[in-house]
Amino acid sequence: MKEVKSIEEVKLLQNFVAVRGQTEDLARPLTTEDYVIQSMPDVSPTKWHLAHTTWFFETFLLQKYLPGYKPHHEMYAYLFNSYYETVGDRWARSNRGLLSRPTVKDVFSYRSYVDDHLRVLIEKDGNRQENTFCFLVELGIHHEQQHQELLVTDIKHVLSINPMHPAYTSAMRHPKADPVPARFVEFGGGLHEIGFSGVDFSFDNERPQHQVWLEGFCLQNRLVTNADYLEFIKDGGYSDFRHWLSDGWALIQQENWKHPLYWENKDGEWHEMTLTGFRPLEPSEPVCHVSYYEADAYAKWAGKRLPTEAEWEVAASTVETRIADGNFLESGNFHPAANDVAGRPLSQIFGDVWEWTQSAYLPYPGFRPEPGAVGEYNGKFMINQMVLRGGSCATPRSHIRKTYRNFFQCDKRWQFMGIRLACEKNHSS
Amino acid sequence: MKEVKSIEEVKLLQNFVAVRGQTEDLARPLTTEDYVIQSMPDVSPTKWHLAHTTWFFETFLLQKYLPGYKPHHEMYAYLFNSYYETVGDRWARSNRGLLSRPTVKDVFSYRSYVDDHLRVLIEKDGNRQENTFCFLVELGIHHEQQHQELLVTDIKHVLSINPMHPAYTSAMRHPKADPVPARFVEFGGGLHEIGFSGVDFSFDNERPQHQVWLEGFCLQNRLVTNADYLEFIKDGGYSDFRHWLSDGWALIQQENWKHPLYWENKDGEWHEMTLTGFRPLEPSEPVCHVSYYEADAYAKWAGKRLPTEAEWEVAASTVETRIADGNFLESGNFHPAANDVAGRPLSQIFGDVWEWTQSAYLPYPGFRPEPGAVGEYNGKFMINQMVLRGGSCATPRSHIRKTYRNFFQCDKRWQFMGIRLACEKNHSS
Amino acid sequence: MKEVKSIEEVKLLQNFVAVRGQTEDLARPLTTEDYVIQSMPDVSPTKWHLAHTTWFFETFLLQKYLPGYKPHHEMYAYLFNSYYETVGDRWARSNRGLLSRPTVKDVFSYRSYVDDHLRVLIEKDGNRQENTFCFLVELGIHHEQQHQELLVTDIKHVLSINPMHPAYTSAMRHPKADPVPARFVEFGGGLHEIGFSGVDFSFDNERPQHQVWLEGFCLQNRLVTNADYLEFIKDGGYSDFRHWLSDGWALIQQENWKHPLYWENKDGEWHEMTLTGFRPLEPSEPVCHVSYYEADAYAKWAGKRLPTEAEWEVAASTVETRIADGNFLESGNFHPAANDVAGRPLSQIFGDVWEWTQSAYLPYPGFRPEPGAVGEYNGKFMINQMVLRGGSCATPRSHIRKTYRNFFQCDKRWQFMGIRLACEKNHSS
Amino acid sequence: MKEVKSIEEVKLLQNFVAVRGQTEDLARPLTTEDYVIQSMPDVSPTKWHLAHTTWFFETFLLQKYLPGYKPHHEMYAYLFNSYYETVGDRWARSNRGLLSRPTVKDVFSYRSYVDDHLRVLIEKDGNRQENTFCFLVELGIHHEQQHQELLVTDIKHVLSINPMHPAYTSAMRHPKADPVPARFVEFGGGLHEIGFSGVDFSFDNERPQHQVWLEGFCLQNRLVTNADYLEFIKDGGYSDFRHWLSDGWALIQQENWKHPLYWENKDGEWHEMTLTGFRPLEPSEPVCHVSYYEADAYAKWAGKRLPTEAEWEVAASTVETRIADGNFLESGNFHPAANDVAGRPLSQIFGDVWEWTQSAYLPYPGFRPEPGAVGEYNGKFMINQMVLRGGSCATPRSHIRKTYRNFFQCDKRWQFMGIRLACEKNHSS
Repeated sequence: MKEVKSIEEVKLLQNFVAVRGQTEDLARPLTTEDYVIQSMPDVSPTKWHLAHTTWFFETFLLQKYLPGYKPHHEMYAYLFNSYYETVGDRWARSNRGLLSRPTVKDVFSYRSYVDDHLRVLIEKDGNRQENTFCFLVELGIHHEQQHQELLVTDIKHVLSINPMHPAYTSAMRHPKADPVPARFVEFGGGLHEIGFSGVDFSFDNERPQHQVWLEGFCLQNRLVTNADYLEFIKDGGYSDFRHWLSDGWALIQQENWKHPLYWENKDGEWHEMTLTGFRPLEPSEPVCHVSYYEADAYAKWAGKRLPTEAEWEVAASTVETRIADGNFLESGNFHPAANDVAGRPLSQIFGDVWEWTQSAYLPYPGFRPEPGAVGEYNGKFMINQMVLRGGSCATPRSHIRKTYRNFFQCDKRWQFMGIRLACEKNHSS
Repeated sequence: MKEVKSIEEVKLLQNFVAVRGQTEDLARPLTTEDYVIQSMPDVSPTKWHLAHTTWFFETFLLQKYLPGYKPHHEMYAYLFNSYYETVGDRWARSNRGLLSRPTVKDVFSYRSYVDDHLRVLIEKDGNRQENTFCFLVELGIHHEQQHQELLVTDIKHVLSINPMHPAYTSAMRHPKADPVPARFVEFGGGLHEIGFSGVDFSFDNERPQHQVWLEGFCLQNRLVTNADYLEFIKDGGYSDFRHWLSDGWALIQQENWKHPLYWENKDGEWHEMTLTGFRPLEPSEPVCHVSYYEADAYAKWAGKRLPTEAEWEVAASTVETRIADGNFLESGNFHPAANDVAGRPLSQIFGDVWEWTQSAYLPYPGFRPEPGAVGEYNGKFMINQMVLRGGSCATPRSHIRKTYRNFFQCDKRWQFMGIRLACEKNHSS
Repeated sequence: MKEVKSIEEVKLLQNFVAVRGQTEDLARPLTTEDYVIQSMPDVSPTKWHLAHTTWFFETFLLQKYLPGYKPHHEMYAYLFNSYYETVGDRWARSNRGLLSRPTVKDVFSYRSYVDDHLRVLIEKDGNRQENTFCFLVELGIHHEQQHQELLVTDIKHVLSINPMHPAYTSAMRHPKADPVPARFVEFGGGLHEIGFSGVDFSFDNERPQHQVWLEGFCLQNRLVTNADYLEFIKDGGYSDFRHWLSDGWALIQQENWKHPLYWENKDGEWHEMTLTGFRPLEPSEPVCHVSYYEADAYAKWAGKRLPTEAEWEVAASTVETRIADGNFLESGNFHPAANDVAGRPLSQIFGDVWEWTQSAYLPYPGFRPEPGAVGEYNGKFMINQMVLRGGSCATPRSHIRKTYRNFFQCDKRWQFMGIRLACEKNHSS
Repeated sequence: MKEVKSIEEVKLLQNFVAVRGQTEDLARPLTTEDYVIQSMPDVSPTKWHLAHTTWFFETFLLQKYLPGYKPHHEMYAYLFNSYYETVGDRWARSNRGLLSRPTVKDVFSYRSYVDDHLRVLIEKDGNRQENTFCFLVELGIHHEQQHQELLVTDIKHVLSINPMHPAYTSAMRHPKADPVPARFVEFGGGLHEIGFSGVDFSFDNERPQHQVWLEGFCLQNRLVTNADYLEFIKDGGYSDFRHWLSDGWALIQQENWKHPLYWENKDGEWHEMTLTGFRPLEPSEPVCHVSYYEADAYAKWAGKRLPTEAEWEVAASTVETRIADGNFLESGNFHPAANDVAGRPLSQIFGDVWEWTQSAYLPYPGFRPEPGAVGEYNGKFMINQMVLRGGSCATPRSHIRKTYRNFFQCDKRWQFMGIRLACEKNHSS
């Protein structure tokens, strides 16, 4: 006879079911053909995201905790491993778009198969007290949420390169607002604690909590807007080397970058490809799809700088900032929105766009990766990348925290990435 | 009132309908996902073949001859032009696999739309006597047939790179036979005529008919088989530079080629990926999917050489060779078959595999390209390629002629390409 | 009548003359042919170093401060500008080895011409009180010293790729010693000051001095030796992904790295190309020519980590470390030497090899680049590089400071780069 | 006692000494630095040419015929083998410019050493009757002459990429003349013999002599001039795809070619880099440094075509053409010269520029390579190249014949390559 489940178990199962369902909801608007395309090496086909997140549960939970579990297909471990060297060989990342099989239908069958087994496994009483088990399910859920964001940003790229400009969703969501005037908010220096220390889920790269010494600093109250960024462009920002890091200057010459990704100047009017279609650029919206080089050049042009990740986290801890109010995946905008909430010290801290910081993605003092294969999750990428904070309009709301560290190379811009300015205390004018 | 149609018109229409239908029949076994993939730059997605052949009829016939014709979609001319500079800009060839839209369904609608209009156009009496019109329809039909062959060879590549080894068709056609013993057949030297001179359809590159002087020569009575080629491999053929042209030797080092494309040595046994699945290599079948470099190296190793295209054509004209008996697309084998017909001077001249000749693809003396945009069809490719003759198991039977000149770069091998040996008259032993 | 010169002026002039002479002394052992070669894009020909440092004085001093100065050759500004966008166009870095003219003799004439004019300029009383002038001369001198180090490391690469193994100098300097036993030295945590604050010369990237919070930490008393590193190799260090950052693992696969640069296993014995020739690897010497990836992987394999640059600087400030004792360029070893000084808390802090830190090369809080064109010197490179500290056997002794920040990308290893281990306080066993 | 030498022996020795000396004379105007540079992968450093031709004599003669011969340096066989797989490993072609040692002086010592030994060897009576020996010496001499031409064309490239525009020789040779009016000369069709059949030296690729059938054809009486070619440029020749082969069109887009190599439009005036320096383009001189693609496009634009190699050879055999009158290496012009000899049916057939033919470089019917390692000389390159005829202003006069087949890929243009037009008999107007 089945025992009554503990509240944690029930919540874990509910969470699992909800997140897995949300992924499939996100894929629903697509045609079968859309699932297959890899429009650049950074992008993975939707089909692959659906299968890879499933493989994660199969590999790290079902194979380990469900006695007698038979994998859905012997080849899927090879096809859908992303980068786990511990787990064995894998299909090359750059070739993910070359596979017509398994079909989309096959992948949905794979999801059902694994979901059914995992549901059974979570409900089994034997794993109730097992901390590692629960941690791995939670990790799998957060992993799936990360791929929900990637699914959205990847499909945006897939649709954007198509000269027919197909929209992901025809719903014309496009909340208009006048942004609040920009000003700089001061924060005191001194010894601060950053990093995660609670009992809830966090990634290893957010830990351990530790002390940092900061001088007093200022953050701008809102994100840099398209209107702001257009000033930089009009002022010749892309053709004046003095604003640019050397690598960035070389890159924009080579790639002939003159504006953020997805912008297009059509008959003298700036337009933008969005997930709701091709439309005129809205000046009040936060600028997004800029690389670190562009964010840094903009800040230098403005006589300011980007915040460090410690400054960002201290600021987010100091003032009241409600994650619940943010423009996240669940808002269904699939685009950053103009800020219209006056009277807040800092707005748009969570959601809308990931905010580039000037901090390199490196281990915190005393960092220890998770044991086992999932230790490959974060630590091995701690080089040649910069930290971004705060989540975006493609991030699931329950996925973000103020200690959350996202990271990308300086040249990447297909994520919803934007800019918040910072400066020293006496440079905020 | 509709007039009675001439016999030519009826035949043209029948032909058009039959060939267009045959293309769609060839695509039928595929999943939607299969239509989208471009597995290497040389390969085009099935979807693209279906649309490009349609664009050919739309551009060169409907737009020119059907007053008031409205293109099915304004963007398709850009997306489905292959290489006609005359006709305008086009989507880059190497990016054909990056487009999820138009969908497969959209492309079939495009085909119906164009077919319906073209049917009307062919039936219209105004074009009855117009030679150019009939020529262009015929050209479109032959063009479609060329893409039927490419569709088959491209989808073979798409399926072959998939580690799941999906089969195009499960029907296990695999006719077995003992090949006839190899021997050399002699042909006399002297002045010969080659090239096309009749009134039926031919490509401009087959004309004009002209005289060539040949010394006496010998051709082998049958194609080189897998068993023959295995001798070359076993004898270290791929590691002895003396057999190889310099460019070929560099290529096989760089690409680490050790055997024909689609071969795989699994636990000491040679296997081959075919359109009917992955299966043990059949020694009696003609070797195929070899590059010019491999064909030439094999011939040198064997103490022989490849034929010139003039020798091949003279031989094909001299002895009785029936196209009707060949192993073509319509046979449904989708693979070259072992030769079992004894008593013929030359067998397998038509069908099975394209035969590499040692002739560069250059204009015949007095060559004149077709006037207008279709003049880009053949002439501008007359450099850096070698001529192949005779058609393959993926060629539609009604498409081939003894004067037909196919051409590929020396490193290509994803077509059904094979080897027939030649030698001087006193070297046939 | 010439006035008596101030002591500062005399010292500046002496310094200038000495450093310029030292550069030419370093080039003396070379054949004319050696001056011309660029053996990889990172390397510059010796000829170029001799000319570029001269161009620096011509451009930033003679052209600005010597009225009526006529450049030695109108084309040299184009040929010998390295990366100063402010100053105009320049010959591509990767093509520096394609220029036979100006000849070596021409370049020495260029040096004489500029030296003569600069000597006059320094002696002129008008510039006596001018701070910017003196700063620029000093900057030019330090810049020349940096290129002395690059000249040595570049010519090492040029000679090393030559299968004839030519030696830069035949003098067989090769001091032997038993390294002191390794142990970890503890340093206390708390608020520390790092960065430069004095009145002597420093680069802008060392400033401003600022506070950092450190937890207590340990540094190893000596550098990692070849013997130490061989243990890592023997333990399969280059084939176990668990030690490696993801980018590093990809790199060593792609480049097939199995050992530090310039090592060669000849008949089972490790050898090393040095500036004094090809010779058996000396186990007691510090390992050098390792990339950041290798340094980091070695540290992880050893259960330790690399120091941060703040830790390194705090340690170098805490214990007595005498720059004067270090193995620098002037020692004439042109190679790191085994450590034989017992009884010191930390040895080899200065000289021998640059020590990789785990700190990204980023601006210090409140960083301000120098004004004008020389502001391009450091700031624009503050991305995608890691900091190295302490100088090497190719660094001029008077060039180094404890606050000195060197920086290279993670994959570079042609400089004399080595490893010192660090760990948390409770992990030093 | 030394016997009296036969006349053949005397001539062979004289020839050997003369040609070896001529090579060194050609190198004399260069600075040491010029000897080292490899300005692109096709180019070899002068130093390498001097050593490689020496290696040829050492390897194929001294090592084989001189008992007890000790190679000058054990490493030179590795460094100076060009492409002879038979003879063993070799230094990569693209890296020839990375070697500072052996020095120029070392290479001249190598030449003396080998010359001294070879002189002894030729004088030894034992080899007097040995045909292979004499053939190999002759082959070595012709090989050295080929490298004389390459030395000149390679050093032209080395000097040309230098923005200082150094001249190879300051002597301002620049014979002016009004070219004779262009007209087409008719030649009759029928069976002709081409290829070499005599007893003097020839390369294997010129043999065997064989019959070809030609229709009647016309050749233009003189080479296409710069003035002629400027008409093509002015008429938009480089921007009209209709003139171009598909590969050529892609190439000129990618490389942004708008004119022949070494041309430069400076302030609206066409200039040209020559071996006697940078100077205004002379309209009356033959156009040179054009690729096959440009030659073919020019011919198509002019409504004509390039000759086949058979047509060229038949024409050269039919009319009187005196090699002795040609503008060859010995003229000391190092540049093609305007044609001023009226009254000749065909002028400039020999010397000035190599004439592109529309014939692919393929084996003649019955071709047999030389036996042994020297069989790699020609045969293995018979693919993907086109034949050029007639020699150039950089070819030694005694090196050329009417049957001589030179060959290059279609994109090459750093040789002195130019254009002579041909057409069918009824298209000469």
